[in-house]
Amino acid sequence: MRKCKETADGRAYPDEVAKWGLFELRLEGPASGNPFVEVELVARFESEDRAFETRGFYDGEGRYAIRFMPDREGTWTFKTRSNRDGLDGQGGSFSCVAAAAGNHGPVRVAQRFHFAYSDGTRYLPFGTTCYAWTHQGADLQEVTLRTLASSPFNKIRMCVFPKYYDYNRDEPELFPFEGSLEKGWDYKRFVPAYFRNLEKRITELGHLGIEADLILFHPYDHWGFATMGPEADGLYLRYLIARLAAYRNVWWALANEYDLMKGKSIEDWERLAGIVENDDPYGHLRSIHNCMGFYDHAKSWITHCSIQRQDVYKTAEYTDEWRTKYGKPVVIDECAYEGDINWGWGNITAQELVRRCWEGYVRGGYVGHGETFLDPNDVLWWSKGGRLRGESPARIAFLRKIAGEGPSEGMTPISFGWSSWDLPCGGKEGEYYLFYFGFNRPRFRDFSLPADGEFMCDIIDTWNMIVSRLEDSYSGGFRIELPGEQYIALRLRRTTIPGPHSFPPSLSWA
Amino acid sequence: MRKCKETADGRAYPDEVAKWGLFELRLEGPASGNPFVEVELVARFESEDRAFETRGFYDGEGRYAIRFMPDREGTWTFKTRSNRDGLDGQGGSFSCVAAAAGNHGPVRVAQRFHFAYSDGTRYLPFGTTCYAWTHQGADLQEVTLRTLASSPFNKIRMCVFPKYYDYNRDEPELFPFEGSLEKGWDYKRFVPAYFRNLEKRITELGHLGIEADLILFHPYDHWGFATMGPEADGLYLRYLIARLAAYRNVWWALANEYDLMKGKSIEDWERLAGIVENDDPYGHLRSIHNCMGFYDHAKSWITHCSIQRQDVYKTAEYTDEWRTKYGKPVVIDECAYEGDINWGWGNITAQELVRRCWEGYVRGGYVGHGETFLDPNDVLWWSKGGRLRGESPARIAFLRKIAGEGPSEGMTPISFGWSSWDLPCGGKEGEYYLFYFGFNRPRFRDFSLPADGEFMCDIIDTWNMIVSRLEDSYSGGFRIELPGEQYIALRLRRTTIPGPHSFPPSLSWA
Repeated sequence: MRKCKETADGRAYPDEVAKWGLFELRLEGPASGNPFVEVELVARFESEDRAFETRGFYDGEGRYAIRFMPDREGTWTFKTRSNRDGLDGQGGSFSCVAAAAGNHGPVRVAQRFHFAYSDGTRYLPFGTTCYAWTHQGADLQEVTLRTLASSPFNKIRMCVFPKYYDYNRDEPELFPFEGSLEKGWDYKRFVPAYFRNLEKRITELGHLGIEADLILFHPYDHWGFATMGPEADGLYLRYLIARLAAYRNVWWALANEYDLMKGKSIEDWERLAGIVENDDPYGHLRSIHNCMGFYDHAKSWITHCSIQRQDVYKTAEYTDEWRTKYGKPVVIDECAYEGDINWGWGNITAQELVRRCWEGYVRGGYVGHGETFLDPNDVLWWSKGGRLRGESPARIAFLRKIAGEGPSEGMTPISFGWSSWDLPCGGKEGEYYLFYFGFNRPRFRDFSLPADGEFMCDIIDTWNMIVSRLEDSYSGGFRIELPGEQYIALRLRRTTIPGPHSFPPSLSWA
Repeated sequence: MRKCKETADGRAYPDEVAKWGLFELRLEGPASGNPFVEVELVARFESEDRAFETRGFYDGEGRYAIRFMPDREGTWTFKTRSNRDGLDGQGGSFSCVAAAAGNHGPVRVAQRFHFAYSDGTRYLPFGTTCYAWTHQGADLQEVTLRTLASSPFNKIRMCVFPKYYDYNRDEPELFPFEGSLEKGWDYKRFVPAYFRNLEKRITELGHLGIEADLILFHPYDHWGFATMGPEADGLYLRYLIARLAAYRNVWWALANEYDLMKGKSIEDWERLAGIVENDDPYGHLRSIHNCMGFYDHAKSWITHCSIQRQDVYKTAEYTDEWRTKYGKPVVIDECAYEGDINWGWGNITAQELVRRCWEGYVRGGYVGHGETFLDPNDVLWWSKGGRLRGESPARIAFLRKIAGEGPSEGMTPISFGWSSWDLPCGGKEGEYYLFYFGFNRPRFRDFSLPADGEFMCDIIDTWNMIVSRLEDSYSGGFRIELPGEQYIALRLRRTTIPGPHSFPPSLSWA
């Protein structure tokens, strides 16, 4: 059992926190005036040569909190600074112990185009989108969590602000600011309960092994949150980051469809990105998502490309081009959704969505899921969460399994020169090749692999989720008979690897 | 019954020819030396203010012929010129009578982006490809013709030269030149029987209402015909044109995959195009077909774009861009073929092929068919002809029927601004709108048409070939419920048209 320590003034904090867990120091202070903007509160955390400064926040009713995520085991000390006496100079120490089971720490970019948790465990993003699931009734939020628990998804795109858009015109119970649609909002007074619900859901996602890809701004708005102005935008970001940065499974998506937010210029976005970069002491992943034109993903603050397809017909097929162009992980969060609504971004088949997921994967990127089936109660997964109805999640689970058996370094596009024009391949040269035929359906294909190795071959029916191991082993040039159906992949893995490797390698995926 | 006249020297010719029919004057002359290159023979045909000069040709065994296609009714006179006494100065006259049933004359470009026969009848190209069907045994050629007779196709791409390529390594019975693979070829001595078979097949195609899109050069060769050199290329073209130009259903495709013929430069192609343009007195349609990079279709000698898709995924979706770029009819002769062979250009589904045909059609162009199913005897339609096995021809017949009911001016892409991003539409502004949903499958869609007209609405299931007429009529903004399936089109036709129009117009398609 965790014990509790007290600061000099008798404020409570835990004396033991697990690595990448959440340390929270709770303080009491002034409730008068506007503590959200008038009270400054910062803490410095130190352990040997490591030091972090992190902002505290006002949690209402005279309560303040400072959160911290330790990233190494051992003793940490802290000390607060504030412009209020009772909050200033509070200090103490606690012990950071081994990470809890299943907590691998925040996700980072690894191998330039891929991701890993902070403990080195590979992270293969298989994301979905439920923009406004935390703005629904509590029952529906619980249903969404149960659905996620049995889904293949380990990342979810979700908005901090409520959403006003097609199939989502309900008013949420809670708002982030004091005020109302009728009377206007006080952007200098936050509603802590709003953020506590968000934190609760992020924590629950963390327990499910799901990263919360938090969308900080979005254009689907009729309350005014999309056009609050620079000062309010900054206050909001600082407050949000103070509350959330210590959650290990948070990603910062600056915006969804930034280019539809006509009130914000590129300079605005760069300034807001600077606040995120500056205030988040842990360097959580950062991106910004487009509608039509891409943001310049080459910007140094952007850790990975978060992409909406620009073309109705060709989407994930550009993955390798975008890798080359931006030199970063390519996450296609929106390649169109399985569903049957009126718009083309939300009415493709499961087959086409899964095809795009495979296309992106063999080309060295990651394609996300979404679902938009018309519903009598307007509960569409992509917006409100609820239950999944589509045929794609099971196939995405299958792809995730195949990907988990892939090269530990992640997929690298592999060219076979001219003969690659109609058959993308990814893997690791000389060791692992995953070819994907997509909607093409050959009855055979000739291959040419290194002649100095033996390869075992699996024909993978990606739709019916069947892996058929061929009896022979293959080397050099050879022909493989194929089923003549769509959505077939071919996996060739070297059975013997020269040098100190073992194969198949023992791979973990969390 | 046609009677026969004689020239001053007693040579035979018909005294009556139907408009756009084939007039042939047969002469006898020297068989010694090499008449193919040593004997010059030209005839001038005149009728009132019209005059044509056309080249004659040596048909072997001392026989010469001059062919002519009259394009107006009335009396025509002719006179020959030659460097041989017996062939020079032959003259006479004949009567041109009304065109035979089904002969609408050569196809021309009409309405800038479309086609019509010379009598003004609309021509909507629905092409297929059987590159080497005339180089197969006579029985198989007959099977191919019978297949074509019951197919929807009214254009066929076919090579003059025999073909040497995957699934087509047989040696043909006849060759265009004297000689052999082993001993080499005399490019100055043609084999008339070879060309007579070609003419027989072109004539038979004409009877079926099928245009012969003749490929004059191609790279699939092991005999040397792809690399004969400029002189032989020119002799061959002149001989071919002298024999074939008077067939009303001939189109000239300078090359298939010109860019794979490394021995010919753009200057060579321009020179060869000049020969075709100069020697063909009738101005048959001219094009040149690419493998990777397009030829510059803006060249003045090119009457229409003959396109092979450059991308595995996106093909006919570019039709409207290419219209804008080149200002000419866009014919996508190769968007990939229904089949199951090893290469991506020959193993797409019927659904995907038909989808591409519709995409191209609503965008104001024309997409061609091909079929490449593996066959135990290597008889693949795309190369050798034979029988069709696929599911696309029936759907292409259905599209041809729908197109036949379309605007007489042809399809013009119609934009509805932002809402067109996922839903191409073609037709005639204010009168006819054909929307195509492709692989998208909405359950409804909102539309906005001119408020001053009433439109009747058909939901068209392009795969199951069902037209469902809705009972209501529509005007202004309205919502249409849709089946939520792939491959649906929506046709909206104005029921009342202001002015002197009648609607639906009475349209013919031949």
